[in-house]
Parts: sequence; C-alpha cells; structure tokens
Amino acid sequence: MSRLLLEVTKLQPQDIVVLHDLDITVVTPDTVTAADISEIEISYGWSTEIGKKILADPTSKLRWVQTMSAGVDYMPLAELADRQVMLTNASGLKSVPIAQSVISYILHFARGLNVYQTQTHWQEFTDQYTISELPTVIFGTGNIGRQIAHYLKALGGRVYGVNTSGHPVDGFDDVVAIDNLGALPDDIAVVVDVLPGTDTTVNFFNAERFATLGDLYLFINVGRGTTVNQADLITSLQAGTIRQAALDVTLPEPLPDDSPLWQQPNLLLTQHTTWAENSSAGRAGNLFPLFMKNLPSYLANQPLSVNVVDLTRGY
Amino acid sequence: MSRLLLEVTKLQPQDIVVLHDLDITVVTPDTVTAADISEIEISYGWSTEIGKKILADPTSKLRWVQTMSAGVDYMPLAELADRQVMLTNASGLKSVPIAQSVISYILHFARGLNVYQTQTHWQEFTDQYTISELPTVIFGTGNIGRQIAHYLKALGGRVYGVNTSGHPVDGFDDVVAIDNLGALPDDIAVVVDVLPGTDTTVNFFNAERFATLGDLYLFINVGRGTTVNQADLITSLQAGTIRQAALDVTLPEPLPDDSPLWQQPNLLLTQHTTWAENSSAGRAGNLFPLFMKNLPSYLANQPLSVNVVDLTRGY
Repeated sequence: MSRLLLEVTKLQPQDIVVLHDLDITVVTPDTVTAADISEIEISYGWSTEIGKKILADPTSKLRWVQTMSAGVDYMPLAELADRQVMLTNASGLKSVPIAQSVISYILHFARGLNVYQTQTHWQEFTDQYTISELPTVIFGTGNIGRQIAHYLKALGGRVYGVNTSGHPVDGFDDVVAIDNLGALPDDIAVVVDVLPGTDTTVNFFNAERFATLGDLYLFINVGRGTTVNQADLITSLQAGTIRQAALDVTLPEPLPDDSPLWQQPNLLLTQHTTWAENSSAGRAGNLFPLFMKNLPSYLANQPLSVNVVDLTRGY
Repeated sequence: MSRLLLEVTKLQPQDIVVLHDLDITVVTPDTVTAADISEIEISYGWSTEIGKKILADPTSKLRWVQTMSAGVDYMPLAELADRQVMLTNASGLKSVPIAQSVISYILHFARGLNVYQTQTHWQEFTDQYTISELPTVIFGTGNIGRQIAHYLKALGGRVYGVNTSGHPVDGFDDVVAIDNLGALPDDIAVVVDVLPGTDTTVNFFNAERFATLGDLYLFINVGRGTTVNQADLITSLQAGTIRQAALDVTLPEPLPDDSPLWQQPNLLLTQHTTWAENSSAGRAGNLFPLFMKNLPSYLANQPLSVNVVDLTRGY
C-alpha cells in the first residue's frame, strides 16, 4: 500500500518522481482531504494548521516530520514525543550562508564600513581591526558554529566555543561548558550567539550574562530571538559596554516598526535572512537530498540517523 | 664614520637605539641642517620637500630609500635610477588588513548589508550570494593579491589572477596574462584591482576594458586611483553593467566634496584606509623589522634582497 507524504515545503517535480517510484504518494496542503489526514505518514515541512488536525486525530499514522529549518522551537515537541513521531531538522543545510553572514557582520564593523557607508565627504576612519585582533566566542558548536569557527581560523582569528558539557570540538582553540563561562579568556571581543530556542536558553543573554562576559566589541545573534533580553542589550549598547551588535533574529519577528531596536545606531538588523543564497530556490533548496539520506532507513523500519532531533532537549 | 639616516617615517625610541649601535645617526625633517642634506645616506620614508633638496645636490650620498607604502608611484623613480639610489617598498606589510577589507566589501554586498544598513522597518532582502557564487578575478598577484586569493579560497571561492606574463601563482585557480583577458572564464562576477600606479596602468579600467570583462556584480579598487577611469566607472554603475563598486583609492585623494562619486548610491568609498589595524601605530607599525631585513646587506655593501623596487617597472 502506498504511503502518504504531505508536501508543506516545496518539492521539485523530479523529487516527486523519485518518491513515486518508492511507492510514496505526495499530497499538498491545497489538495489534502479529511480522509488523507489520518493516512499521512510523513510531513515534509510543517504546517501548523494541518499539523494540529493530524495530532488531534487518534488514528493518525504520522511517523516522521522533516523540517526545513535548523531550529525546531516552533514545533509541538511534547505532542510529537507522546505520539512517537520522529523529527529531523535541516541543520547544516544553511551553515555556509549563515556563517558568511556572521563574517560579514564582524568585518562590517572591524573594517569601518559602518562608518563609511553614510559618509558623503572625505573623512578617514582608522579605528579598524583585523580578525586576529578580535578574539571570538561562539555559543553553540553545531554545524553553524563550526562553520563560523572554520572561517575565523582561516582569517587568522582566535576562536572559542561554548556548549552544554564543554566537550572539545575540532576547529575551536578551546571549548568551555555553558555553566563555566569564567573559564573563557579575559580578552573576548566578539560573542556569536548560535543557541537553539529551548526552555533553558530563554533570556540567556541578559544583563547578568553580559556583565560576566565583560566589555564587548560586538554581539551577534544568528540563533533565536528568545535567547536575548533585548532591553538589556539596548542598555548595554547605550552604555557602550557592548560597542555594537548585529541581530539576524529578534523577538518578535517581524519586528514591529515601533521597536526601539530600529532606533539604535550601533545595531545592524538583517531580518532573519542569513540563510539566503543565490543558487537554491529559497530556504528549501537542498532539503530533499538531506531528506533522502534518511528515507531508506525509514522505509526499512530502521532508526533515522541524520539530523534527528532529541524531542526532550529540543535540538 | 657615522652614517646619516633621515627619519621621515616615525621610528620608535628602541629602533633609534638599534641604529645607534650600528653607528647610524638619525636626523629628523625638523632638525636636518643644510650640511646634513649631502650626508644623508638612507631616507626612511620619503619627504618630497627634503627629497628635492637631496636630489638637487650633486654631492648627495643618498644610496637607499625605504618607503612606508607598497605603491611607489609618487616617487621620482627616474631620478633615483640616474643616481643609482636603491628603493625598497613596504609591500606585504599591510596585506592582511587590506585583504580583509576586500573580503568585507564582497560580503557587504553579497550578504545584503548595503540594503539592511539603512532600513528602519522589517523588509526581507534575500537577493544574497555566497562567495562560491561570485567567481573573482584579482588584477595583481603580489603579496596583497595572494592574501585576498587565500581568504577567498578558504570561503569556498573560485579565484583567478591576472599578471604581466600570466605566470602561475600558488593559491589561484588560474592566472592569465594582462593582454589575454579573453582567457578568463565568462562567469566572472567580481573584479579586484590591486594594480600598481605606473605609466602602463593609467586608465586601465576604462569603458573598453569594462566591456571586455562583461557584466559585473562588483568592482573593487585597492590599487591606485589612477588605474580607473572614474567617469567610465560611473557610467557603468548607472547603466547597471557594473552593479556595485567599492573604492579605497580614488583620483584625486582626498576626493573633493563635489565629486560625483559621493552621490553614486551603489558605491562604497573607504578613503584609502584599508591598511588600518589596531595593533600597530599607524601605517608604519611594522616597517622597521622589514627595513632591518635589508640593513645587514646594506652595511656589507651587498645587494638588497627584500622588497626591492625595479625603478623601470615602478613596482
């Protein structure tokens, strides 16, 4: 009997043929029937609306959800766990563009482009830095954090990582545990937040944490908006203890027009688009090959092995 | 007998002690006497005013000039050649900050910061690129060009070089001769001009050359302002055949307030400061160690070997 896959994230025609040959039938949110709801086994991407119907159906056959995002904080993790639905994310898919955006932020300030971009007459600005002069700590040592570290090392930088246990990770000069930030060197200039949005990371970067980290040249967030106390960040930016910041993610998104973040001069906002690149059609460009790495295991009733989310941890 | 060195570019006190121990006496432009003029053997840095007096003096003992710059287009090369004065430049000294500025320019446009920097409300801009999507050609394969190529390769880029003869250089995917630009691939997106200012490079990047290179995503000049026909560049920017540009060097410098370059929206100007870094006191920071590499040869009447300028070529 054919299995049913719900195509929330767009598939290419040739992908649909591949699935058809494996006896998988594709239904879209536009054409899905009430009868289909209980038959859907795989959700490729996630629709909050249809997802609610599926999870409300006690006869649902849903077994696997593949998200198009690395972060899964918007997913009903507890319900998926209750129903023993497997969740795989898109971690790694956008590491290159995201990491190149992080490098663009650092060099934007370090090479004075934040000053030069608005000048309309000759005025030399020489308070510049090279990457080797800006020791950096990356919170999160997953795919994105490692890609950022790789680029910074190539540019001559000193790079530290922070993760849950402090376990060493290749490509970092050192890694410390998140509850042991005192072990970081005193001369950290740049903080890069790549933390996932979980219960334990909410408001992680608040006034107290900023005090622990000391004066910073630059604070960057490409993780989740929930991980930063934005009022505390603005206070630090205005006090100058954090000289400048770049945020790709905020709370909420879209950020309303009356948010004080728009008015902060030493702050760059990039509207959750660091994933963007030219070669792939939107965010989902390379998702299908990633999905296909797990499909043979799924069809063989084996555990999935690629990008499996721990539903309790949330990443 | 003590030798006389003219300190145009600033020396540190400890440098002066080192020279003193080698029986070299330092005079400054402020204290130099008429009698000193003919006795000066070494000019550390170059003063146009004092230089004229020295070269007008038929009894001058001047034998060596060490510039603080990589480019020597402002030097009286023919006169130095006539007088058999050796010229060494500062090539390589600022390769890292200059190359990091070049990367900052590319990523500034590629990651959409040129758009985001002025936004005051949420508007997603996803017409972004990664380095691998922007094949780049670097005109000039010396220290700076090689450093830029190294960084671009680390960021996943495809990088071509152009030099006089087309001789291969490590770190480039391919190198072509400057009179054979047709051999470059068709999909070049970024041109980086690191050409020295010489008689043969004046107006090199003009309408004709831009037509040869085809449509460009980005044109960068960190070489010399004289190498670009600025009117032709503005025409290309306004036509959109060159989508955007970043110029560290212009003609003249400083650029006057009424230059049309200031009004060009898709153009970034950085006022000849890509050399800047935090660790060294201005442009001359690491010049003395470079100078010291040649000094033993000089004192032993041996040919200089480090950063010697060919006075005929001009670089």
